[in-house]
Amino acid sequence: MAKKVKDPGLGEQSITSARRIVNKDGSFNIKHLNGKTGISALYAYLVDISWARFFLLVFLVYFVINMAFAMVYVTIGVEYISVAPKNFFADFVNAFFFSSQTITTLGYGAMAPTSILAGIVSSFQAVAGLLSFSFVTGLLYGRFSKPKASIQFSENIIYRDFKEGKALMFRLMNSKKDVMINPRVKVTLAITEDDEKQGYRRNFYQLALERDHITYLPTTWTLVHEIDKDSPLYKFSSSELKKLNGEFLIMVSYYDEAFNEEVYKLHSYTFEELLMNVAFEKSFYFDEEGYTVLDHHRISRTEKM
Amino acid sequence: MAKKVKDPGLGEQSITSARRIVNKDGSFNIKHLNGKTGISALYAYLVDISWARFFLLVFLVYFVINMAFAMVYVTIGVEYISVAPKNFFADFVNAFFFSSQTITTLGYGAMAPTSILAGIVSSFQAVAGLLSFSFVTGLLYGRFSKPKASIQFSENIIYRDFKEGKALMFRLMNSKKDVMINPRVKVTLAITEDDEKQGYRRNFYQLALERDHITYLPTTWTLVHEIDKDSPLYKFSSSELKKLNGEFLIMVSYYDEAFNEEVYKLHSYTFEELLMNVAFEKSFYFDEEGYTVLDHHRISRTEKM
Amino acid sequence: MAKKVKDPGLGEQSITSARRIVNKDGSFNIKHLNGKTGISALYAYLVDISWARFFLLVFLVYFVINMAFAMVYVTIGVEYISVAPKNFFADFVNAFFFSSQTITTLGYGAMAPTSILAGIVSSFQAVAGLLSFSFVTGLLYGRFSKPKASIQFSENIIYRDFKEGKALMFRLMNSKKDVMINPRVKVTLAITEDDEKQGYRRNFYQLALERDHITYLPTTWTLVHEIDKDSPLYKFSSSELKKLNGEFLIMVSYYDEAFNEEVYKLHSYTFEELLMNVAFEKSFYFDEEGYTVLDHHRISRTEKM
Amino acid sequence: MAKKVKDPGLGEQSITSARRIVNKDGSFNIKHLNGKTGISALYAYLVDISWARFFLLVFLVYFVINMAFAMVYVTIGVEYISVAPKNFFADFVNAFFFSSQTITTLGYGAMAPTSILAGIVSSFQAVAGLLSFSFVTGLLYGRFSKPKASIQFSENIIYRDFKEGKALMFRLMNSKKDVMINPRVKVTLAITEDDEKQGYRRNFYQLALERDHITYLPTTWTLVHEIDKDSPLYKFSSSELKKLNGEFLIMVSYYDEAFNEEVYKLHSYTFEELLMNVAFEKSFYFDEEGYTVLDHHRISRTEKM
Repeated sequence: MAKKVKDPGLGEQSITSARRIVNKDGSFNIKHLNGKTGISALYAYLVDISWARFFLLVFLVYFVINMAFAMVYVTIGVEYISVAPKNFFADFVNAFFFSSQTITTLGYGAMAPTSILAGIVSSFQAVAGLLSFSFVTGLLYGRFSKPKASIQFSENIIYRDFKEGKALMFRLMNSKKDVMINPRVKVTLAITEDDEKQGYRRNFYQLALERDHITYLPTTWTLVHEIDKDSPLYKFSSSELKKLNGEFLIMVSYYDEAFNEEVYKLHSYTFEELLMNVAFEKSFYFDEEGYTVLDHHRISRTEKM
Repeated sequence: MAKKVKDPGLGEQSITSARRIVNKDGSFNIKHLNGKTGISALYAYLVDISWARFFLLVFLVYFVINMAFAMVYVTIGVEYISVAPKNFFADFVNAFFFSSQTITTLGYGAMAPTSILAGIVSSFQAVAGLLSFSFVTGLLYGRFSKPKASIQFSENIIYRDFKEGKALMFRLMNSKKDVMINPRVKVTLAITEDDEKQGYRRNFYQLALERDHITYLPTTWTLVHEIDKDSPLYKFSSSELKKLNGEFLIMVSYYDEAFNEEVYKLHSYTFEELLMNVAFEKSFYFDEEGYTVLDHHRISRTEKM
Repeated sequence: MAKKVKDPGLGEQSITSARRIVNKDGSFNIKHLNGKTGISALYAYLVDISWARFFLLVFLVYFVINMAFAMVYVTIGVEYISVAPKNFFADFVNAFFFSSQTITTLGYGAMAPTSILAGIVSSFQAVAGLLSFSFVTGLLYGRFSKPKASIQFSENIIYRDFKEGKALMFRLMNSKKDVMINPRVKVTLAITEDDEKQGYRRNFYQLALERDHITYLPTTWTLVHEIDKDSPLYKFSSSELKKLNGEFLIMVSYYDEAFNEEVYKLHSYTFEELLMNVAFEKSFYFDEEGYTVLDHHRISRTEKM
Repeated sequence: MAKKVKDPGLGEQSITSARRIVNKDGSFNIKHLNGKTGISALYAYLVDISWARFFLLVFLVYFVINMAFAMVYVTIGVEYISVAPKNFFADFVNAFFFSSQTITTLGYGAMAPTSILAGIVSSFQAVAGLLSFSFVTGLLYGRFSKPKASIQFSENIIYRDFKEGKALMFRLMNSKKDVMINPRVKVTLAITEDDEKQGYRRNFYQLALERDHITYLPTTWTLVHEIDKDSPLYKFSSSELKKLNGEFLIMVSYYDEAFNEEVYKLHSYTFEELLMNVAFEKSFYFDEEGYTVLDHHRISRTEKM
């Protein structure tokens, strides 16, 4: 008999239109209201965005800051940064270049401050520039030293014949060259049901796995939940399964050899992501030189049984 | 029957006027005498202060150092930094700007050293400047990579009806978007009593919790200590409770997904922070898009029962 | 009786020409197909290469980038970086130097941009330069803060008389001054056999060790597997042993005092690296000042028994 | 009866003149022969030295490198760095300043390269300078982020009356403001004896402690080993004890709240550091504001019993 487990911390209450608990990228569907934001939140944001967005932002901010300082220098008067005033556009361009030469501490010197005000602004700008690039240095290192995206999940969870019965399976892949050590997996099933008394409620079940830990994970690992009498899914037929409102919450932890850290990764599958009666294709083979070849495109590929 | 536990390391001795053991921010009320201080202590200090104070200090130090070097350059003679001497004020201002252009390695060159002494000072200043900004880079990264302030406690601990009896409750909130994994809580009660033989003594008790660990903490978690026969607080009436001289010492630990580290957080409530016969308001709700909305302002809000 | 253990995650399937599972440096013989590559992969690569290669690459990239920007400045016209045009070679050399002075934010100013286009390119180059050196700073720190190469294995695993029977031995050395704390060792034997039904299959066995953990490892540690009745190797004669197609997979973990981190290290020996009937020479001795002298050259030295 | 324990990894062999196993600072008396040295070893060295030595080295290296480059520029000819040649001393001084302005990327421009050779050297020097300061940035951060010196041991281990018998005691102090969490202590006694058959041998014993772990360590902790029948020291009289050739090896581990890391610290006491029949003075007291005052000078102070 399947036994409910206590709420693992996600809350038992729900509503019909509730979003999935965990997204495919491991994040939660939570909005924070009245939360404090500050430089640390900015840092966290800048560590998490994509490289393209990161560099775009860096250059954009660099551009905008120089625009602002250029306005300041034009207001002060370009004659005080060693430039003969012409028209607004020419002055602004010169001031922009002076600003960029100052904030990067380049300081060619063809332009240089010649008044107290210009001197103060440029002194301040230089130190602010250095601080900004210190910030960027920290950010870059923060981005690199954060273990991420090295574990990949198959797109779907599958339902297939297994031994004398049925089983659910999904697959993990180590997408880096470094081996993952002591990976462990925990699968919690959340089923949302309409309880007449209490409204929409989530019930949680721990799913037993054929193996929930291995020693090394250099390539892929297929996780198997046999739907036997103890499984909470035993009582459902294939067609009933697909209609369930629920989610498989997966927590993988392993020791990351490259970062020398214990890493946790969350993932989830909904019942809509359940494929019926297919099997995973083999994801690796040996090439003629004896190497194991791991094809990242195959991790999610399935074939009819 | 409630059983005392051994001193968890805080000392059993006390005095009437002793401050609380742990402050609301998790720090202890300890003064160090004759402790060594050094650059590491300075670093620790600069990592812990607020951002406002941090930047203020950086700019202040930058200003003061340039003032000091300006004095040196004026003393050497501004003619040796390519400036025609005028009056002290004008010379000092020029020397200040030369100093700031040197320490940031800006080096416009409109001013440049022309004597051996000026050359030595500016050579030294440039390398000292680079070291300082290296220090600031380390500091910035140190500030960002230190997991802090991501767990928030309800302002009060409450005392309310629960099942057939009474219970104490307080609430935790994850104030970040990243989920906390495997949070665990340990509550130690310290009661200070006047023992005729030994003077003021602290007695320690471990408080049993309805649940002391969960798997995920994406939103809030209410901790419950039922005041049953085994509770050290069973023998006190509501009015006696409020008069006790004691403290609830709380240690929370969890795995921080964003920093990939196990994090510990201390907190405490005194009996003065105990609210009688109130209940916590709900802290989150679902919005029309199905998102869970977590309102940071509600974490401490209570309502009459 | 020796008992097989479950596949530790390496896969039971194999082929005749399969490469060893784990290389001497702890890496696996896996090729990734269709894997995503990006800046993080580049970072990981640059953290792992040798110092010589690292510096070579840095200077090479610096050279190539300056070549590219020099071409741009020549195309714009060297007159716009304050240089009187001569011939292509002279112009290119000047442009190269201007580029290097810009990317390092040196900015002597003897050359400086005098047109809008030259100004834009140099502004961009300066900030790109700063970003690049931020990247290099992160890389350097990443290289240093990654615990590596501090544990050394004897070149061979040996087979020798031990007590009344035979034993396998290999040796670990702490090659740093810092002591390793709580080192633990796990040895898994993989033997590949041709199974008529299933083709080449790997069978895995856990090897019992005389001692599999110690408290400190300041010098060397000899690991001993006694080949008694419970050993999977008991049934083989010396000559049969040498012909086995298999591998000793070794996982060492310890707490690294210098890096304050738990560190894992993989290693392997094939049966070709098995030396018969030799013993390890002593690897350390006391000098006349009472110091323990640890000779790194002796870690792998053996003598006839 | 006291039971020997297995060699914890330190080696059972010894000689009369052998140095103590662990020094007061936690290091071992081991010399490495034929060990590889490289940039990582240099980094480790520079992380461990004192701040005074560190800064001295940085400025010394800066000075020496500029001397070397100055020689190069003088050899090339100072006319190619925009300086009119005078005498060797004046030229060398100018070249030195040009070098320092280049390596720090200051680049005033009063001096600037005007030949291809001078251009190449200065281009190289600028990038080498940036790399060096990146290295220093990493070093500074490495120095700060390494948890050290926050635990302090009493200078001596003491032997005193305790309950009905005798006990050994030593004291730990948390010398920082941050609390240490879950500190644990393990004491191993190593006694070196002359065994007629095998020469000088070390025997190891685990010493039982009254308490070997606590929950918090905000101030001090006195460790107590009662010398009861199970103690390996039970058979020795006070005067015999002082003559023993042995060492108390201490391993402390705790979770460092400031660094968010598990930290290990080794220490040792020899029998020469054993004080007989004294007691530790109290190390902290409450001041009139109710603060606990922890006096670092008192940690080792003892008084006659």
